[in-house]
Amino acid sequence: MSRIVMKFGGTSVADLDRIRNVARRVKREVDAGHEVAVVVSAMAGTTNQLVAWCQQLSPMHDAREYDSVVATGELVTAGLMAIALQDIGVDARSWQGWQIPLRTDGAHGKARIDGIDGALLIARMQMGQIPVVAGFQGIGPDNRVTTLGRGGSDTSAVAIAAAIKADRCDIYTDVDGIYTTDPRIVPRARKLPRIAYEEMLELASVGAKVLQTRSVELAMKERVRVQVLSSFADADGGDLPGSLVVDEDEIVEKEIVAGIAYSRDEAKVTVKRVPDRPGIAAHIFGPLSEAGINVDMIVQNISDDATTDMTFTLSRTDLARAQAVLEAQKAEIGFTTLISDSAVAKISVVGVGMRSHAGVAATMFKTLADKAINIQVISTSEIKVSVLIASDYTELAVRALHTAYGLDA
Amino acid sequence: MSRIVMKFGGTSVADLDRIRNVARRVKREVDAGHEVAVVVSAMAGTTNQLVAWCQQLSPMHDAREYDSVVATGELVTAGLMAIALQDIGVDARSWQGWQIPLRTDGAHGKARIDGIDGALLIARMQMGQIPVVAGFQGIGPDNRVTTLGRGGSDTSAVAIAAAIKADRCDIYTDVDGIYTTDPRIVPRARKLPRIAYEEMLELASVGAKVLQTRSVELAMKERVRVQVLSSFADADGGDLPGSLVVDEDEIVEKEIVAGIAYSRDEAKVTVKRVPDRPGIAAHIFGPLSEAGINVDMIVQNISDDATTDMTFTLSRTDLARAQAVLEAQKAEIGFTTLISDSAVAKISVVGVGMRSHAGVAATMFKTLADKAINIQVISTSEIKVSVLIASDYTELAVRALHTAYGLDA
Repeated sequence: MSRIVMKFGGTSVADLDRIRNVARRVKREVDAGHEVAVVVSAMAGTTNQLVAWCQQLSPMHDAREYDSVVATGELVTAGLMAIALQDIGVDARSWQGWQIPLRTDGAHGKARIDGIDGALLIARMQMGQIPVVAGFQGIGPDNRVTTLGRGGSDTSAVAIAAAIKADRCDIYTDVDGIYTTDPRIVPRARKLPRIAYEEMLELASVGAKVLQTRSVELAMKERVRVQVLSSFADADGGDLPGSLVVDEDEIVEKEIVAGIAYSRDEAKVTVKRVPDRPGIAAHIFGPLSEAGINVDMIVQNISDDATTDMTFTLSRTDLARAQAVLEAQKAEIGFTTLISDSAVAKISVVGVGMRSHAGVAATMFKTLADKAINIQVISTSEIKVSVLIASDYTELAVRALHTAYGLDA
Repeated sequence: MSRIVMKFGGTSVADLDRIRNVARRVKREVDAGHEVAVVVSAMAGTTNQLVAWCQQLSPMHDAREYDSVVATGELVTAGLMAIALQDIGVDARSWQGWQIPLRTDGAHGKARIDGIDGALLIARMQMGQIPVVAGFQGIGPDNRVTTLGRGGSDTSAVAIAAAIKADRCDIYTDVDGIYTTDPRIVPRARKLPRIAYEEMLELASVGAKVLQTRSVELAMKERVRVQVLSSFADADGGDLPGSLVVDEDEIVEKEIVAGIAYSRDEAKVTVKRVPDRPGIAAHIFGPLSEAGINVDMIVQNISDDATTDMTFTLSRTDLARAQAVLEAQKAEIGFTTLISDSAVAKISVVGVGMRSHAGVAATMFKTLADKAINIQVISTSEIKVSVLIASDYTELAVRALHTAYGLDA
């Protein structure tokens, strides 16, 4: 007997037939003797509609009102799911964020979970009742509904799993697991049976958006074992094997590189000929930070006279704002020109095995050189090497690296 | 300076443009120096969709889950309305039932309001903030969402008006007031500038469904002055005059008859040749009451031997069930046959002026006799005379009575 959280995304509950399918899948786990809690997203399309209404009424709408509007989609699915479960003889009840309560901070629109008392849910589960929790939401210190940001139902599910001390948190989604890279680019990409939290974080934050990044951070912090699997069952109605996101100690046969990620949501800015003196980096990046602009990779050219060039990358959507911020500081910083380029992509190789294996970066550089792909910027971390290249070469680079690290199926 | 509750129904908030219109209308009252609270229904069509989903998943669905699903429509409108008000510079915030809290009993799907503490809302209004309350819902003793039955937002509005000691509760709807009768039948029907609570109750419960009956009962109990008016403004954007539902003492020029109501949702049952002995009425109506079937008019024929005929009317939708209940009790009751007729209509003349004027019933009977309309059953109350006739004569009877009582415009 295990205690399991089962989380279903918007496409899995998009209509009444799919809700009935999900109910039957939950019943199979119950019939197998497991204690189950369910977390649901809104029906596909609902949240987008609600967000659009808020934006159309007022682009600068009150985030507290936005939250109270967009959180309703999950309330609908939670109630409908409880009805569908009851209809096939499974005792169930829906839970709204404020009823549990799932307490968050007051950052409306992107709240962080402060705490969940799992005692009530555990007591109900031990009595044989399935809690069906509305994902994506909680209650803030102001006694108002908060939401956890887009994709927040993943984080709800992991937090509930931690609160009720679940053995596993199953995330049912429209992909059937975590792959070594995007299968649309590399048809020979392999599904990973297990992946470490840290690897998943790097892969998620650089573009492999299967799970909300914060849900993985939370899973790592709370040591919740997360399984990603398809909401579409096999021919016998059973689950297809998914990917398990776990502590790296649980992965016996570690690959050196677990996967190749890419992101085209990048832009590069070069600040030309800034005075090469202490504090100049603070002059450039301080104002950007104050404007809420996150800078990713940074490289400073070797100075050949009293000036230097500073190059950095950021999210493409922030480029125009970053240019405006820097132009406003031009006199203060003392640069000559700004050069920007948004035809760039970031390619990353990720793997906890890198910690104990040298040569991963060298293999990457050689592989790209063999394909005549120019590397513009490099950054490395303990378990990741990232390079910035011209975006035209994205597919070529990903395919070549996938082969070079022996990841092809 | 007055304190006003403004309640907007589903057609008034059916899309973003109409929500913006409502916001502008609220702003006019605020600009005129009034303290305003707003109560909103769900966008037209939303509640029907949510109800249909519950029914399609399970005809015998859990009323607690039904409530948590169908109450979401008003949450959406309340949040959107707050955003629309803020967008035109009016301080506003939405309130969900559990936040106020609006406490109800535990009768999910048709809960009754137990109490509202208006202190918090009053404090906010005095600070210049408009509370936008999600209608139709509250929180039950089980800490779960309850709904007040279809049309329940009217009752929410009146209850909020009582709790905050409002001077008036304005109900904006798709009709522009209370008429002497249905203008679709009698084009010369007149709008009543004022109508007494008791009259409104009789008119509402016999078919003039402008306000939820319970909202009028509550208004009468709490002495809340209710104005019914159109959600469609005049050419200058101002309100068209509506109808005020008030204590009869506020009506100086009382009409003897305020209006003519009709209902086609009627059926007649005659229980033939029941033994004419004490207790027989209890034998017939006890089981019907236990089955939750409301009986309206009752007439017992004069006994010509040891048996009598008992005739009563009930809602047409209850007819089949009532027949089954009585047939099951046939031996106990001792009747020979059941005769039923659903081609009947109830016509009522209503007016508090009847209390001090004789001859209202006589005028009714003579008018119908002149048109050769046969009266099947008669019932009277202090302020109402109702007759049951063949439904084919409904329009003819209503028109003739409207003229006879001098109500034509």
